[in-house]
Amino acid sequence: MRAVLHHGERDVRVETVPEPVLTEPTDALVRVTLSCICGSDLWPYRRTTPPEEPSRIGHEFLGVVEQVGADVRTLRVGDLVIAPFKHSCGECEFCLRGLQTSCVRGGFYGTPEEAGAGQGEKVRVPNADGTLVVAPVGVDDPRLPALLTLSDVMATGHHAAVAAGVGPGSHVAVIGDGAVGLCGVLAARRLGAERIILLSSHPDRAAIGRTFGATDVVEVRGDAAVERVRAMTDGLGVPHVMECVGMQGSWDTALGIVKDGGRIGYVGVPNGVTEGLALGRIFRRNVTIAGGVAPARAYLPELMADVLDGSLDPSPVFDLELPLEQAPEGYAAMDERRAIKVLLRV
Amino acid sequence: MRAVLHHGERDVRVETVPEPVLTEPTDALVRVTLSCICGSDLWPYRRTTPPEEPSRIGHEFLGVVEQVGADVRTLRVGDLVIAPFKHSCGECEFCLRGLQTSCVRGGFYGTPEEAGAGQGEKVRVPNADGTLVVAPVGVDDPRLPALLTLSDVMATGHHAAVAAGVGPGSHVAVIGDGAVGLCGVLAARRLGAERIILLSSHPDRAAIGRTFGATDVVEVRGDAAVERVRAMTDGLGVPHVMECVGMQGSWDTALGIVKDGGRIGYVGVPNGVTEGLALGRIFRRNVTIAGGVAPARAYLPELMADVLDGSLDPSPVFDLELPLEQAPEGYAAMDERRAIKVLLRV
Repeated sequence: MRAVLHHGERDVRVETVPEPVLTEPTDALVRVTLSCICGSDLWPYRRTTPPEEPSRIGHEFLGVVEQVGADVRTLRVGDLVIAPFKHSCGECEFCLRGLQTSCVRGGFYGTPEEAGAGQGEKVRVPNADGTLVVAPVGVDDPRLPALLTLSDVMATGHHAAVAAGVGPGSHVAVIGDGAVGLCGVLAARRLGAERIILLSSHPDRAAIGRTFGATDVVEVRGDAAVERVRAMTDGLGVPHVMECVGMQGSWDTALGIVKDGGRIGYVGVPNGVTEGLALGRIFRRNVTIAGGVAPARAYLPELMADVLDGSLDPSPVFDLELPLEQAPEGYAAMDERRAIKVLLRV
Repeated sequence: MRAVLHHGERDVRVETVPEPVLTEPTDALVRVTLSCICGSDLWPYRRTTPPEEPSRIGHEFLGVVEQVGADVRTLRVGDLVIAPFKHSCGECEFCLRGLQTSCVRGGFYGTPEEAGAGQGEKVRVPNADGTLVVAPVGVDDPRLPALLTLSDVMATGHHAAVAAGVGPGSHVAVIGDGAVGLCGVLAARRLGAERIILLSSHPDRAAIGRTFGATDVVEVRGDAAVERVRAMTDGLGVPHVMECVGMQGSWDTALGIVKDGGRIGYVGVPNGVTEGLALGRIFRRNVTIAGGVAPARAYLPELMADVLDGSLDPSPVFDLELPLEQAPEGYAAMDERRAIKVLLRV
């Protein structure tokens, strides 16, 4: 089968790899119909040290169940399923509490021995019952791109909003105008936020942000952004801040604009956060820091319900659509910020 | 009048200073009857660089209202009042939300021009209506030491528990067996915690911790403490961790023992936290960090009610009682860990 392989710095290729097979009775084999490229896929893509050997990549996909193990109870061959970006058993304490990302039996797709990942024609999904969510739609449904976002990016934006404590009437700032930040805007609006300040210096992204619910856009960066947001909020800052980048600069902005007693909900993978979080900057101000890797599986049912009833549509974050074979062009487009997020048709 | 002055490293003296006078119509003048030494007073005490000139110190006190400004409405001369360690207006957005430590008009007692602090015979209290809490007891009431703890230490322990999300049935770990940590144990029990693991390597402090409600004591430190707590909790860690120290080592322990999805409530003034908070250590685990400087004023009424009805008694944290004149001996005793917390009778 065909799949994307990461060879080295800015070098991904679509090549022929062995097909995965069922190995555990709780596995399912999924034929991927839609996949996409995540902002976090760009970190290995940009890394100057190549992997020891070409490695599979990708963790967002949906597709059709092709085969199930003997112990799989809730899935049937032919089901269209959405895969959260990590698999999880559905039965441990963490899964039952909605923190499937900490599942004691869960993990990422593929193992060191048997490569496997979302940017390819098929995926072996361990813990299939606990992981996959059946979408009651056909393979030609126009809502599939929107449903695919629930695999990671929309779930992650939602997690930022939940972690930041966003609710009806909230005043919110969103740091990051990538796909996650934009989904964060959508999530904040969905949760009832009244004012949503999006920090975005890219007019095209800001435009999507406005259609997603941003009431204000701050197009300057760094200290100027902190000053601007403070000026917009009587000098006091914003009670709910969503940090959707994960760099030192975005954290500095988050700490600069958050109101005393407020919450920073963060979902940006810490990358280039060189100094650690300066506790001295928040101690006197009682700022809460919450978030982390999003338990997409926990949020999938409620978000899917909203996609299916038409009240939620994150699909505009996909501004470039390519066949799997052109994945390398998709990576380059996202790397060069020519595209926000690339949908791959498999 | 007599007051404690900080002269330099391990050098405090009781000297004669000018009496404070009312300067604003919203001030009250309080004749201090009880004061005490805070763990945080030891930071300047230990600092090797002396202050530019001898400076007043102390921020926990209770006493009798001696004089009120023309605009003071809720206090009368003769009232016995408890002073939270910061003053606050009671009317701004932060005060109304219970975050008086961020009051836009508030601050610490005394100003650079007019020195004033809690370890002395009298204090000018700005924003008196918003700050002082009248205790309906006499100056000889045996509960006064317990009431004095509400000025800071018990309120701070309570804040750690609240920030850590402690509630009925919670499993909790308390890092720090100083007066704040011990009060944290008491606060966790008061909020209904079922299991309270106190990290304490001092048998005398652990003994008080047990009377305050600790169900388990871990007497080892550092990595060994992390290992022990994990072994006690099926390897998963503790969902509610109260960080009551503020050093790099205590934070490392907190991050090591907190359960995925858990909360660290922190109140230890960050001091010697050299590396900042390692976001990379909590991102995958969805650990929430909350807390900061305790809004003692917000908690005073409910905690006072419990002291007055006999259900709450933090006074055993005072294990040494001295007259104000012997404050230097009190500092030395706390510095050398011969005393947990020193009560000063004025």
